[in-house]
Amino acid sequence: MLKMSHDSSKKMKKVCSSIEGGSDLDVAIQKNLEAVDVFQIEIDNLNMKASEEILKIEQKYNQQRKPIFKKRGEVIKNIQNFWFTAIMNHPDLSSIVDEREEECLQFLNKIEVEEFEDIRSGYQIEFHFDENPFFENAVLIKEFHLEPVGSPNSQSTQIKWKDNNDLTKNTDNNFGKSGGRKRRLESKSFFLWFIDNVDPVSDDIAEIFKDDLWQNPLQYYLVPDIEETNAPENDEDSDSSSVVEIQETEEQ
Amino acid sequence: MLKMSHDSSKKMKKVCSSIEGGSDLDVAIQKNLEAVDVFQIEIDNLNMKASEEILKIEQKYNQQRKPIFKKRGEVIKNIQNFWFTAIMNHPDLSSIVDEREEECLQFLNKIEVEEFEDIRSGYQIEFHFDENPFFENAVLIKEFHLEPVGSPNSQSTQIKWKDNNDLTKNTDNNFGKSGGRKRRLESKSFFLWFIDNVDPVSDDIAEIFKDDLWQNPLQYYLVPDIEETNAPENDEDSDSSSVVEIQETEEQ
Repeated sequence: MLKMSHDSSKKMKKVCSSIEGGSDLDVAIQKNLEAVDVFQIEIDNLNMKASEEILKIEQKYNQQRKPIFKKRGEVIKNIQNFWFTAIMNHPDLSSIVDEREEECLQFLNKIEVEEFEDIRSGYQIEFHFDENPFFENAVLIKEFHLEPVGSPNSQSTQIKWKDNNDLTKNTDNNFGKSGGRKRRLESKSFFLWFIDNVDPVSDDIAEIFKDDLWQNPLQYYLVPDIEETNAPENDEDSDSSSVVEIQETEEQ
Repeated sequence: MLKMSHDSSKKMKKVCSSIEGGSDLDVAIQKNLEAVDVFQIEIDNLNMKASEEILKIEQKYNQQRKPIFKKRGEVIKNIQNFWFTAIMNHPDLSSIVDEREEECLQFLNKIEVEEFEDIRSGYQIEFHFDENPFFENAVLIKEFHLEPVGSPNSQSTQIKWKDNNDLTKNTDNNFGKSGGRKRRLESKSFFLWFIDNVDPVSDDIAEIFKDDLWQNPLQYYLVPDIEETNAPENDEDSDSSSVVEIQETEEQ
């Protein structure tokens, strides 16, 4: 989290040795800087202890959440187009899905997010698909290796596209449905995002899958109206619009 | 953190009651959605417990860090221009300090960041100044009230500018020194930031003061060379440039 003080000590020696002459004032500054460095070591140690304790708590609750997520996944499998609907209702995720991908994502029957044992070290997102006209794979996995060893990297399952169905080709002008939406994320398509492993540390979309959609997909499945959270709390008024939107989804 | 399931239950009733006829399939979907909602409640409860435990740990360590920060502040007071130098060496903070503010910030003798007892509820940043030609105040405080009651807001001490020295006026074209720097933050000046309370929830600069500079100012005081972290780890080579930069600061 924070730079270790070992570093500053080294740098401090350089500073001090570079002050020529070594007057009383310089010596005083040096002494003070050393004292600040000692405090910094104490703070760093406390931060480290705090991080470790917090990590343990997160791991403990991850273990407790895991079986619930598993059971949830099994139930969700029985709700047709659950994940597709949740994605298309999500203000950020929907904006990366282009028209042909919409067709494809209707074959998505399960999403699973798994954090690694040491949750700092990374996570993976699994997309499970029914047999479909677009590719051969049953599961597409995007895997993030973040800490603490090696440089961060991500990997994606190689997609075995069926003839002429590579959805990562010619997607540039295909954002038919998202024209009116505010584009908060870089404009790539779902599959362009999936295969992009250039900057795994700032993969906003992966984080939305992991920290938002996965944590509570039901709210997106049920609430297509993005504006609703800002609207006044009036049940009667908001009723009609939600229902109409959901019915549309049901009919598709 | 996550929306409580109470909300989704209400919305689910709407969805279900809007499915006309109530065929076996609809009933099945409804049952499945209800099951997903029960899992969501379990997950929400675990999340809440996890947050509470993490909060307690953070509070515990905040208490332990506090006296160290206090002692650190006293020592730093004896190092002339410590905070000014750290700010000017900080890649983000330096970019908001305009030329006249540089002069003013040399009177800054202490920064203190204090998180409120319930750390979710907010924090304040105190800037202590020696007597100076710019304003009457000895302390300028920017205070953030974030959660859990009321809408988030921030307040700043009203600055009593001395004659013709209001640094928030006519600052637009004054960014003399920062021309070559990458501007990662909105281009406001330090004092324009200080008095700006429009969007307290996304006050990036306040967060940099709280989470970065305050946590480890020594690293910025000692390391003016922003690029250094990307440079190869070669002590001999990097020596000369660091030292030169620091000497420049000493001479100012």
